[in-house]
Amino acid sequence: MRFAHRHLLGIEHLSQSDITAILDLAEKYVDLNRQSAKHSDVLSGLTQINMFFENSTRTQASFEIAGKRLGADVMNMAMQASSIKKGETLIDTAMTLNAMHPDLLVVRHPHSGAVDLLAQKVNCAVLNAGDGRHEHPTQALLDALTIRRAKGRLHRLNIAICGDVAHSRVARSNLILLGKMENRIRLIGPPTLVPSQFVDFGAEIYDDMNEGLKDVDVVMMLRLQKERMDGGFIPSEREYYHRYGLDAAKLALAKPDAIVMHPGPMNRGVEIDGTLADDINRSVIQEQVEMGVAVRMAAMELLARNQRDAA
Amino acid sequence: MRFAHRHLLGIEHLSQSDITAILDLAEKYVDLNRQSAKHSDVLSGLTQINMFFENSTRTQASFEIAGKRLGADVMNMAMQASSIKKGETLIDTAMTLNAMHPDLLVVRHPHSGAVDLLAQKVNCAVLNAGDGRHEHPTQALLDALTIRRAKGRLHRLNIAICGDVAHSRVARSNLILLGKMENRIRLIGPPTLVPSQFVDFGAEIYDDMNEGLKDVDVVMMLRLQKERMDGGFIPSEREYYHRYGLDAAKLALAKPDAIVMHPGPMNRGVEIDGTLADDINRSVIQEQVEMGVAVRMAAMELLARNQRDAA
Amino acid sequence: MRFAHRHLLGIEHLSQSDITAILDLAEKYVDLNRQSAKHSDVLSGLTQINMFFENSTRTQASFEIAGKRLGADVMNMAMQASSIKKGETLIDTAMTLNAMHPDLLVVRHPHSGAVDLLAQKVNCAVLNAGDGRHEHPTQALLDALTIRRAKGRLHRLNIAICGDVAHSRVARSNLILLGKMENRIRLIGPPTLVPSQFVDFGAEIYDDMNEGLKDVDVVMMLRLQKERMDGGFIPSEREYYHRYGLDAAKLALAKPDAIVMHPGPMNRGVEIDGTLADDINRSVIQEQVEMGVAVRMAAMELLARNQRDAA
Repeated sequence: MRFAHRHLLGIEHLSQSDITAILDLAEKYVDLNRQSAKHSDVLSGLTQINMFFENSTRTQASFEIAGKRLGADVMNMAMQASSIKKGETLIDTAMTLNAMHPDLLVVRHPHSGAVDLLAQKVNCAVLNAGDGRHEHPTQALLDALTIRRAKGRLHRLNIAICGDVAHSRVARSNLILLGKMENRIRLIGPPTLVPSQFVDFGAEIYDDMNEGLKDVDVVMMLRLQKERMDGGFIPSEREYYHRYGLDAAKLALAKPDAIVMHPGPMNRGVEIDGTLADDINRSVIQEQVEMGVAVRMAAMELLARNQRDAA
Repeated sequence: MRFAHRHLLGIEHLSQSDITAILDLAEKYVDLNRQSAKHSDVLSGLTQINMFFENSTRTQASFEIAGKRLGADVMNMAMQASSIKKGETLIDTAMTLNAMHPDLLVVRHPHSGAVDLLAQKVNCAVLNAGDGRHEHPTQALLDALTIRRAKGRLHRLNIAICGDVAHSRVARSNLILLGKMENRIRLIGPPTLVPSQFVDFGAEIYDDMNEGLKDVDVVMMLRLQKERMDGGFIPSEREYYHRYGLDAAKLALAKPDAIVMHPGPMNRGVEIDGTLADDINRSVIQEQVEMGVAVRMAAMELLARNQRDAA
Repeated sequence: MRFAHRHLLGIEHLSQSDITAILDLAEKYVDLNRQSAKHSDVLSGLTQINMFFENSTRTQASFEIAGKRLGADVMNMAMQASSIKKGETLIDTAMTLNAMHPDLLVVRHPHSGAVDLLAQKVNCAVLNAGDGRHEHPTQALLDALTIRRAKGRLHRLNIAICGDVAHSRVARSNLILLGKMENRIRLIGPPTLVPSQFVDFGAEIYDDMNEGLKDVDVVMMLRLQKERMDGGFIPSEREYYHRYGLDAAKLALAKPDAIVMHPGPMNRGVEIDGTLADDINRSVIQEQVEMGVAVRMAAMELLARNQRDAA
């Protein structure tokens, strides 16, 4: 089984066996990260640059920890405060960093497609840490690992993705990954937040949580991204929670062993009941974060290996 | 002699022998830090996260250098620019980082008690880097080490803590530590800035520098924290300096070998005369900073050791 | 050949043989940086602090990568958000960091002379990463290395420095370095942006690109620093580009193998035509960035070596 990619730009480029290769290697890092000394030399001597054009505590921290634990020299660039302000273009900034010979470039950008564009201009491996409404592949991979560990498999599951699908690259990457692994996906949310074109991905669309959650194995809640709702429909939080927020009553319609997921950061009492989010018998939200570090370590190891082979 | 704590949240939890254990180990790191190559592997493979919810150049830099010199993978989180803005709670943020398996969490927070709360929620060792007006234990420990090295002992000394005691966690932690080590403490400042309840700690309170400084061994000046004086008494700087600022004339009332301390950053000409602050025969202000790195290295080593033993 | 300096504050203090020593050592690091594993232990156990009082993506990133690849413990201080705000002086901040025993202090500051002042107060080696309109020595060194590699020599070349010379420490440091190495320098730009006192450095001054570019070996474009033009002449970008922007037509007047340089970040279509900037047959702009990391590695190695010898 070989992972033959130069970059990790999106789930859409990955095969079933690519996905399995990343998840299998990640299991090794789940174990390592639970040790007292958690360090490897897999990326020793390599340079990892994190370029975040949007703030993100958890994703940047996860990539930074992943790289440092693998022995890379890790550098964070706060791109808001940078040359961009002096009028430099995205590509010039990327070319400049590229000339410093990084091996791994982790990029988050507010515009869909910006990371793909950038990957065409540089010599190193690029990891997409989220671009606009397009893809967030490591989030989908960490969700997949979490599901596989909780359910014992990653196929033939009924999975509900609920809430603000329209603004969510997390939903999009998950939809693609879980579809590739042959699961049945339901998208649940108000019609304004669940675009009908997602039917093309093979998903069923529901407007009613009580209907959509019936007999699902996995309930994946999304964050209500008010900051992305430019001028469009903004539901009242109370009304939203009443209809689309996950609580014990609605969860009771799912399978008895259904797990609850959320990519964070959570709006407690908006998308999800706080007590439910903390219920370690149902919620795997903390485990998602844990898997995040492991999955990123695995992805970076595979990309670095390919790069070394190519050299 | 054993240091048996899981966290370093405040001086109030430490015994005399705990304090001595930290200071003794810190002496080793004072020596190491003066070497040309200053690196150890004591925290090798461990992950240290600095979560600063308030800006602090010196404290964060000190913890960062301490961790890096001990071989830890160190990550700084600028918490102002983080998920907090997306509506996440302090506890959710902490739980998220906790799921990434850090070993040491260094936290500064503007609210008293926030760091204690957070420590209850995580698996790793938590070091309080200052919480509201409550505690700043590593500052008190570095002050203690500075005094012990200058005076040859840390007990039966007359120590004056002068200025804005009311807003100062530094004063509070010092008061507790120096009391535990059986010193005689005087608090000197305007009544509005020296709350009378501090008598409960066994301190004597003075309004007059000329009276309070008589025969003291140590003069510890505090920063005037105008940013914390919400609506209350704000003295004019000139008047304040005249009455409570330390200069050569006032210092002449202390013992001839009395040392001058300040936790920084200094307001020269407000709390202290600039020339006096720079007088290396009297001022140990630079040495305080030096001791800070050593004390933090020692504290982190002891906590990491306990954690490894527990695992 | 010995490099006998304690600091790297400006090109004006360096001899021809100092410059050659840095460039020769840098060649070794150009090779290392092109390897897949690019790590050395030359600065192992040493602490490098980057104090940037002005934002700079590329220079700070370059110094950070340089230090990390050499095994130093590297710490970045975002000085805008620091104690400076609490009223601390530059010197107090520097003294505080100095007490933490750094070995290398990399400083950028908006005021000319600030870095020299600071170097007098600390025990460690100071590298000037740009101070006001004064010096930016590592930029001149990386430009020199780029020229030497492209032209096979660093003397008896005709070099044009074009544009906003008045506000440019890059121009100033280059003028000094290239003069010391016995090149013939021409400064080309509008009279308001090319102060006549630069004749004292032995440069010829031109107002007309078509005249000034005739038969030059190297064309060094400068960034138009609008942010520094307080109240003075601000040319319209269009007019500026027409008269002083570099395009293929103007470059045709230079020698057929003349190279094109720019310190970045570029204003495409203002100082330079975008297509020309990307033309790898003429433009060495990316190579300048690459040489930057190598030159900084070399400079830090030499300074650290001297420091160790002195200890």
